[in-house]
Amino acid sequence: MTSHLTELLGSRWPLLQAPMAGVQGSAMAVAVSNAGGLGALPAAMLSPAQLREELTRIKAQTTQPYNVNYFCHTPPTPDAARAAAWRGALQPFYDEAGIDSATVAPGVGRSPFTAEAADLLQAFRPSVVSFHFGLPAPELLAQVRGWGGKVLSSATTVEEALWLEAQGVDAVIAQGLEAGGHRGMFLTDDISSQMGTMALLPQVVRAVRVPVIAAGGIVDVASIRAALAMGAAGVQVGTAYLCADEASTSAIHRQALQGPAARHTALTRLFTGKPARGIMNRLMRELGPMSELAPAFPLATTMIGPLRAWAEGQGRGDFTPLWSGQNTSGCKALPAAEITRLLAQAWEA
Amino acid sequence: MTSHLTELLGSRWPLLQAPMAGVQGSAMAVAVSNAGGLGALPAAMLSPAQLREELTRIKAQTTQPYNVNYFCHTPPTPDAARAAAWRGALQPFYDEAGIDSATVAPGVGRSPFTAEAADLLQAFRPSVVSFHFGLPAPELLAQVRGWGGKVLSSATTVEEALWLEAQGVDAVIAQGLEAGGHRGMFLTDDISSQMGTMALLPQVVRAVRVPVIAAGGIVDVASIRAALAMGAAGVQVGTAYLCADEASTSAIHRQALQGPAARHTALTRLFTGKPARGIMNRLMRELGPMSELAPAFPLATTMIGPLRAWAEGQGRGDFTPLWSGQNTSGCKALPAAEITRLLAQAWEA
Repeated sequence: MTSHLTELLGSRWPLLQAPMAGVQGSAMAVAVSNAGGLGALPAAMLSPAQLREELTRIKAQTTQPYNVNYFCHTPPTPDAARAAAWRGALQPFYDEAGIDSATVAPGVGRSPFTAEAADLLQAFRPSVVSFHFGLPAPELLAQVRGWGGKVLSSATTVEEALWLEAQGVDAVIAQGLEAGGHRGMFLTDDISSQMGTMALLPQVVRAVRVPVIAAGGIVDVASIRAALAMGAAGVQVGTAYLCADEASTSAIHRQALQGPAARHTALTRLFTGKPARGIMNRLMRELGPMSELAPAFPLATTMIGPLRAWAEGQGRGDFTPLWSGQNTSGCKALPAAEITRLLAQAWEA
Repeated sequence: MTSHLTELLGSRWPLLQAPMAGVQGSAMAVAVSNAGGLGALPAAMLSPAQLREELTRIKAQTTQPYNVNYFCHTPPTPDAARAAAWRGALQPFYDEAGIDSATVAPGVGRSPFTAEAADLLQAFRPSVVSFHFGLPAPELLAQVRGWGGKVLSSATTVEEALWLEAQGVDAVIAQGLEAGGHRGMFLTDDISSQMGTMALLPQVVRAVRVPVIAAGGIVDVASIRAALAMGAAGVQVGTAYLCADEASTSAIHRQALQGPAARHTALTRLFTGKPARGIMNRLMRELGPMSELAPAFPLATTMIGPLRAWAEGQGRGDFTPLWSGQNTSGCKALPAAEITRLLAQAWEA
C-alpha cells in the first residue's frame, strides 16, 4: 500500500505535509517536496493573484510533486440577523479594545474551489489537488483529472470515506479528532460523530479500497509507525511543521505551541463558523468554543479581525486562531526539510 | 517496559480486560485470567454480598492474577431541584410508557471504594486493584498495598497521569477518547480536555516513569501493535470483549454492537450523570447526549430504570446504556479465552 501511494503521489515518502492556510505558503511546500515529502500549498486564503504568484514560486524552486489544497464549501447567504447576533456577542470585546464596531464589516474569509481556480491551476498542472469539506462539482474534478492531477480529500467518518471513494478520489485522508485546524466533516455537522485516529483509521482502511492516509496525532516516527501498523498507506502531518523555519506562524502562535497552553486544545466554531481545533484562548473560554453565535462558515472570521489585531499588537493571542493538534511535542524550530527527514526515518528499516 | 508490566501484574501478557460494570462478572474475569490476560471484576454495581460471591467464584476457578475495579467518586448530596428537573425531562417518556413517575424513586446507582469494601477485598487479596475517577483515600490505598495489591488508575489528560504518579500508582491507564463506558476524568469536567489515544498515549508515556497501559480504540492485533509502537507497556481492551460468551451483555446490546448503529457512539451524561461513551439511541438523540438535565453521578441512573425495562420488554434499547467504544470491529461472539488468544498474537514475533 505504501509503495502504491508513493507511485500515486510521486513523492519519495508517503508523507504529506498538511496544508495549513494562514500559517504557510510556497516556502514550506518547496522545502518539504524537495526533501522527499509531499509539500502542500493551501489556497483557501489566497487571492487569484497571490495564488498565481505562489505557484510560480513553487515551479521555480522544485521539480518534485506538490499538492494544492482547497476548501469545498458552498458560500453561505449572508444573514443579517446572525451577523447582528455575532456583532452583539463581540461587542464587549470591541468596547474593551475601543473599536467602533460599526466600522467592522462582515465579509468573506475563505474561498472555495471554483471554475476560475481550476483554470488558474491548469496552467501549473499540480500533480496532486486535495480538498477539505468534501469535493467540488464533478466538472471541476474532471478538469483536475484532465491534466493528470490526483485527487485527495478528507474523511472524518466511515460514511464520508465511502462517499469519497464512490466519487473516485485517488486516496482518502482519514482525519482523526486529534488533528489541528478544520475538521473536514461534510456529511454531518454532529461533532459526536467524530472519532479518534485510533478508531477511525482502521475502520476506514477496512471500508475502502483506495489508499488511506492517516491524519491526527501523527507527530513523530513512533506515531507514523503506529499508523502504518493500523493499515495506513501514508500519513499527513500538520502540527509538527507549525514551528518550522519556513512556516509563517506568528511569534504569538509559536509561543503558544511550544508552551504549556498547548496542552489544552479544543474544537471551536468561533474563528470561522466551522469546527476547527486550536489552543484554548480567551475568546474560546469566554464565549464557549462551540458557541452557536458564530455565523456560518466562513463568515465568522472577518469580524474578529480587528480584535485579533488589537490583542496581537499587545503581544496576546486572545483573539487569534491558534490552530494546533492535540500533540505539539513534535513542533520543532527547524528547517522543514530537516523535520521531513526526521519523520521519514519511520520508513527506514 | 512490557516485561516490567507483566512482572508487575503477574499475567502472561500485558493485556488487561477492561472492567465493564453491568455487562460482565466473574465468568469473564476467570476466562481471561486463565487464558493469560488480566481478567477484571467490576465492583461498582455489586452489593457486598454479591461481591463476596463473585470473588469466591474467581478464587475457586483460577490461580492466576486478576483485577478488581472500583469507582472513586464522592457520592453527591441529593438535590431535590435537580431530581425534579430530571423527572420533568423524563416525564414525556414516562407518559408514553404509562409509568406513574411518582412511583419512581431516585436512588444510588454505583458505589465507590469504601473501608467496608477494602475489608471485604482483604480476605481475597486480589493482586491488582484498579480505580476509575481518581483514587480512594490514602489509608484505603495503604490497605490494598498492605496485602501486596498493585494499584492502577485511569488518566485522561497528562495532568491526571502526573497526579496519579505522584500518588504512587504502579501503572497508569491512558484512556483515549475512543474508549467505551465512563471517561475516567477526575481533575476536570471539561470534555474539550479529552484526547484521542494517538495524542494522549505518547504524551503520557513521555510525562511519567511508571508503565503506561493504552486504552481506547484497542480492538485487535494491529491496534495493539500501534499502541506498543507509541510506547505503551500494555493495553486494556473492553469493547472487543462485549460480545464474548461469558459477557452478560444483553441481546439488545449485542445486536447494537454488531450492527450499523455502532458506527455512531457519543459521550453521554444521561445514564449516570458522568460522561460515558455508548451507541447513540433514542434517549440520547431526544434529550441531547450531554444534557445538563441529568443529575450528578450516579443519581441519573435509577430514574431511567423503569423506562429501560419497558423498552427492553419490547425489544428496544431506546433507554439502555449501550456502552461501546468507537470501533466495534473486534466484537466477536467467541469464548473470552479465544478473544484473549487472538489479541495476544500481538506479542508473538
